Parts: sequence; structure tokens; C-alpha cells
Amino acid sequence: MASRREVAELAGVSEATVSRVLNGVGPIREETRRRVLEASERLGYVPSALARSFARSKSGNLGVVLPYVPKAHLFSAYFFSEMLSGIGSKARDNGLDLLVMFQTPGEVMNYTDLFRRQKIDACIILGARYDHDELAAIQQLDREGHPFCVMNQHFTGESFFEVDADHVEGSRLAIRHLTDQGYRNITFLNGPYSYSNSQERMEGVRLGLQQAGMELDPSLLLEGNYSRRSGIEAAAIIAERLHEIDAVFAANDRMAIGVMHGLRERGVRIEDFPAFVGYDDSDAAEMAVPALSSVRVPFFEMGEIAVSKLMHPAEALQSPRTLLPTELIVRASSSSRFRA
Amino acid sequence: MASRREVAELAGVSEATVSRVLNGVGPIREETRRRVLEASERLGYVPSALARSFARSKSGNLGVVLPYVPKAHLFSAYFFSEMLSGIGSKARDNGLDLLVMFQTPGEVMNYTDLFRRQKIDACIILGARYDHDELAAIQQLDREGHPFCVMNQHFTGESFFEVDADHVEGSRLAIRHLTDQGYRNITFLNGPYSYSNSQERMEGVRLGLQQAGMELDPSLLLEGNYSRRSGIEAAAIIAERLHEIDAVFAANDRMAIGVMHGLRERGVRIEDFPAFVGYDDSDAAEMAVPALSSVRVPFFEMGEIAVSKLMHPAEALQSPRTLLPTELIVRASSSSRFRA
Repeated sequence: MASRREVAELAGVSEATVSRVLNGVGPIREETRRRVLEASERLGYVPSALARSFARSKSGNLGVVLPYVPKAHLFSAYFFSEMLSGIGSKARDNGLDLLVMFQTPGEVMNYTDLFRRQKIDACIILGARYDHDELAAIQQLDREGHPFCVMNQHFTGESFFEVDADHVEGSRLAIRHLTDQGYRNITFLNGPYSYSNSQERMEGVRLGLQQAGMELDPSLLLEGNYSRRSGIEAAAIIAERLHEIDAVFAANDRMAIGVMHGLRERGVRIEDFPAFVGYDDSDAAEMAVPALSSVRVPFFEMGEIAVSKLMHPAEALQSPRTLLPTELIVRASSSSRFRA
Repeated sequence: MASRREVAELAGVSEATVSRVLNGVGPIREETRRRVLEASERLGYVPSALARSFARSKSGNLGVVLPYVPKAHLFSAYFFSEMLSGIGSKARDNGLDLLVMFQTPGEVMNYTDLFRRQKIDACIILGARYDHDELAAIQQLDREGHPFCVMNQHFTGESFFEVDADHVEGSRLAIRHLTDQGYRNITFLNGPYSYSNSQERMEGVRLGLQQAGMELDPSLLLEGNYSRRSGIEAAAIIAERLHEIDAVFAANDRMAIGVMHGLRERGVRIEDFPAFVGYDDSDAAEMAVPALSSVRVPFFEMGEIAVSKLMHPAEALQSPRTLLPTELIVRASSSSRFRA
């Protein structure tokens, strides 16, 4: 079957323009519209299922559901903004507009109503956590056959379209990196357990320690809420035990940097810092002093892939859950050279 | 509550004129506009055009236009994400959904088509820059009387709804802070001049130097593009002249931090850094080492106010342009204590 690119070439327009025409998402000059339609007809190009549904003049909007936390400056949280950037980029290439919707925690989203009212033709759910009602709402969405994709959260036993990263492996890599350098008393500052992400990180930590012939010391396990503030709070506990704690692995960069700040506030000099490994590999990791080693998560690509799954459900059905690889980026904060 | 007819009678105009004035539908003779506003105020008639349009069951979507730069991870740019957070928060309070749309640089947005197709009922334009075609498109939007608001960009001579911050004063404060501490050779790393923001910063720098009895040394004026990369590039030039340059004022934090990195890469020790002042007061400023002094811009509040203007055009018409105050946050990077 002809590809969108071939149609674009024959019509002498960009692929995005082809999509905009075939999805009926204007504005498009009549002349351009005609050329694209002729080209796709000549090549027998059949746009993806979702694209066709858009062509049947639906809303042309891709819904993105975000958890709403007042004053939380949500878009500023690195991983949301990166995923949104990837989603936005891909959506635009397909001539779709993004309808951003906020979900009040505890309040269940009426997803199906959004489809019935034709506000959206497909949706991506970000920041979901394990919750009975939330799951029920998503299951209904599934039963009614609306195209949707869950990002960064896994619902065990369901076959929803999901895009996530391998947090078990990412955490295992972080721990092995530390144990390989001889660190023994590693504090793990995790996030809330209601996120499958936090559970996976815990699993990776256990696995990493086990492979190094060690066990998780419960007294070295701390829980924050992924905010920098909670890292600063954890620093109070870590500072007290600096004589024994020689490394800190935090479930995201913000908490790791919060711990660094907390220690600095308590007069601990950089040279006396424990080794640090963060998670997300956000801009902040590179800018931290010492530069923060961190587990890189391809958030932008995850966003692009979520949109692709919705544009090509047939292929997506063959592997509903996409798990992207994570990678450890080693910087000064955990390199032996820095310790010496 | 008073009716539109009563307002029309008191103002001695037709009801249609009342609507055109209160809905911000130009052009209207100033005299007429004044009479209608006075009458509606006297009678306590404060309609919300947007609320009414939603009542007439339109899309229920508030459009947000963002410049599209492939792979630029747009939402990750602090000031866009903060403004979006403010917009999203206020939109949600008013039961509106956000329709995020991307504008390809160079390609002119067909705003009015979005309204005609009822995809949006009002829109907020972010990241606009001075460009003839762009201005023409916005002027048409204005002529057709669609509610819209421009953020962080000023179009001289127009009476669009605009929400911006006082960048002249913010830059003046930064410069005075440096000159007051005896810094004399201050490098100013500005952004592209096509943004009114950059022009306003330049004006503030001139003013600050003037008040200190100094003049802008053209050889100390550098231009970046607001990216960290461009700051790292500027560091090459600054490093060469470190013997004379004693302070750096950058038009945003990313560039300031880029310069710090560039200097560090060249082996310049923190103790030998020139004084630094950034702009935006992003999370990065607080996390930088040394902590970066910066001009705080209330992006989140700017977003909230933009939505409020659209919800209450009657009040907004009385002062179409809202300019929020900026504030200098002094941290280690520019404090004398740190230099000593």
C-alpha cells in the first residue's frame, strides 16, 4: 500500500499537509486539497483507521488527560512536559490538535462522555495511578471501543494500549553501578507506591542488590512524593547517618537534587557528599553540581509512540504494551574519580 | 441585574452596539465605547462574552497557540510551561478545556478559521514575535471581534488584550544591582531582537547603566537565542576577556547557566567567575551552583490573568494591556559576599 510520504511527494506537499487534508483538519488551500486528494486516489492511499475517523469529520482533537493539582505547575514537571512535547509533535505531524484535560485526583473522569460529545476522537492518559474507580472508568472506555493509550502506568492483567519505560532495568542499572564501585550502604528514596513506576523501581533495586549479593536494608528505604521539597526533607534523615550512608539513589532527579540542597544547607561540603544517582535524566541533572548521574527515560519518544499507536491501532494490537529501554548516564556525582 | 436594553438606552446606542463594545468587537468610536462602558458600569451590567458564548453551547474550548519548533521540547521551556500551567489552572476553574495548537514559524495561522469551525471560543497567543503577516492575522482576528489575548509580546500601536511583565524595569533592576556593587564591565547576553521582550530588556539595561553614569559598551553586547547552547557558545567569547569582564547579565536563566557551564568546561573555577544575573527565576536558577540571581517573572499569574481577561472583556477593555511587575531575586552568583 502507498505511504503518506509517497502521497506527499506526488502532491508536492509535506506529509503534515497530506494528513491535514485527509483528516479534514483545515485550514488548507483548495488547490492543495485537490492535489492531495488526486495523489492519494492515484496511489490508492488508505489513511489509518483513526485518520479515517477524523476524515468522517469528527472533532480532529486528540485528548490528553493530566492529573490536576492546584498550583502544582504541572507542565513544569519535567516528565509531563517532555511527554506532552512528544505527543504534541506527533499530533501536529498528523494534523491533530491537542485537547488538554485535567483530572481532579479522587474524582473519576467521565472519559466516554468526552467521546460521545465528540470533543475528542482518541485520548492519552498521563499520570494515572492504581485506583479502583480510575481502573473501572478506563475499562469502560475499553469496552466501548474508544481508542486510548495509557502512559507511564501499567495496569496488570489488562491489555490496554500502554507506553512505558523499563524502570525495573533502569533501577537495577543504577544500583549495580553503585555496588560495582564498592558502595555498600545505599539509601533508596522512592516515590509513592500507588504508581506502578515506583513499584518497578523498587523491584529493580532489589534485583540489583541481590545480584551484588546484598539485601535491601529497610532502614535505608525512604519515601518522598517526587517533589524537590520531599528530597530536602529526606536530607535531614540522611545527614544524621552520613557516617554510614555512602550512596543515595533517588526515584527522580528533583528529589536527588533536593537531597543535595538539604545536605548543603546543613553545611555538608560537596567533597563529603555520598554518591548520588537520580532518575529521569532531566535538564536539572546536567546542571547540578556535582553533575548528577541519572537514569535516562525517553519521555519524548514515549509521547510520539503513544500517538502512533492510536493512529495505527491494527499494528498496535499486536503488542498493546510498548516498553522503551532506559539507560544510565554516569556523571560526576557517582564517579569514583569524583570521590577520590 | 440590568439588561442589555437598559444599558443601550442609558448610553443612547443600539443593543447591537452594546454587544459589540462589551464583546470587544471593534472598530468602535472611542466616544461610543466610553459611553457604553460608563452605562454598563453605572447599571452594574457586567456580562461575560465568553460565558455567554459557552452558554450558546459552542466548543467549550480555549485555544492556546504555541510556536512549533521540531524537537524543541517546547513544553519544557520554563516560561511556556509556567504560562500554560497558569492558563490551564484558570481554564479548569471556568470549566474550559485547553486546545493546544502549534504554529509553524513562517507559516501564518488562520485564526479566524478556528473560530468559524467552532473549534475554539477564545484564544491565547503565546510566543508571537514581530512579523508583518503574523500581525495582519491577529488584526483580522480583532476586526472580526473574536476574543483573544496575546501573551509576552507587545504590538505597538494596537489595543489588543495583552498580558506581559515589566521587562524594562526587571532589566534595570538587574543592572543597578550589579553597578551598585561596583561592577563596571558588564556583558549583556540578550535574546533575538524580533521579540519585544528582548527590546525591552535592552532598554532596561541602557536605563540602568545611564542611572549609574555609564554607557553601554557595544563590544560587551552579545546575542543568543535563549537556549543553553547559545550561552555555552557565548562563554567562549567571555572566557577570552575574563580579565576585563566582571559581570554577566543574561536575558534568561538557561543562557546564564550555559555561560557558567562553558566557563567551567574551560577550567574557570567558580571562585573566579564573574558576577551572574539571569532572567525568569526558573527552577534552574535556584539549583545552579553558585545559586543564580535572577529576575522573577510571574508567568503562572500571567496565564491566569490572560484567561480572566477573556472571561470578563468588559473590565479588560478598560485596560487592554496588563503589565505585571518583575522582581530581582539576589543569590550567591552576584552577591559581594560570594565574590570575596
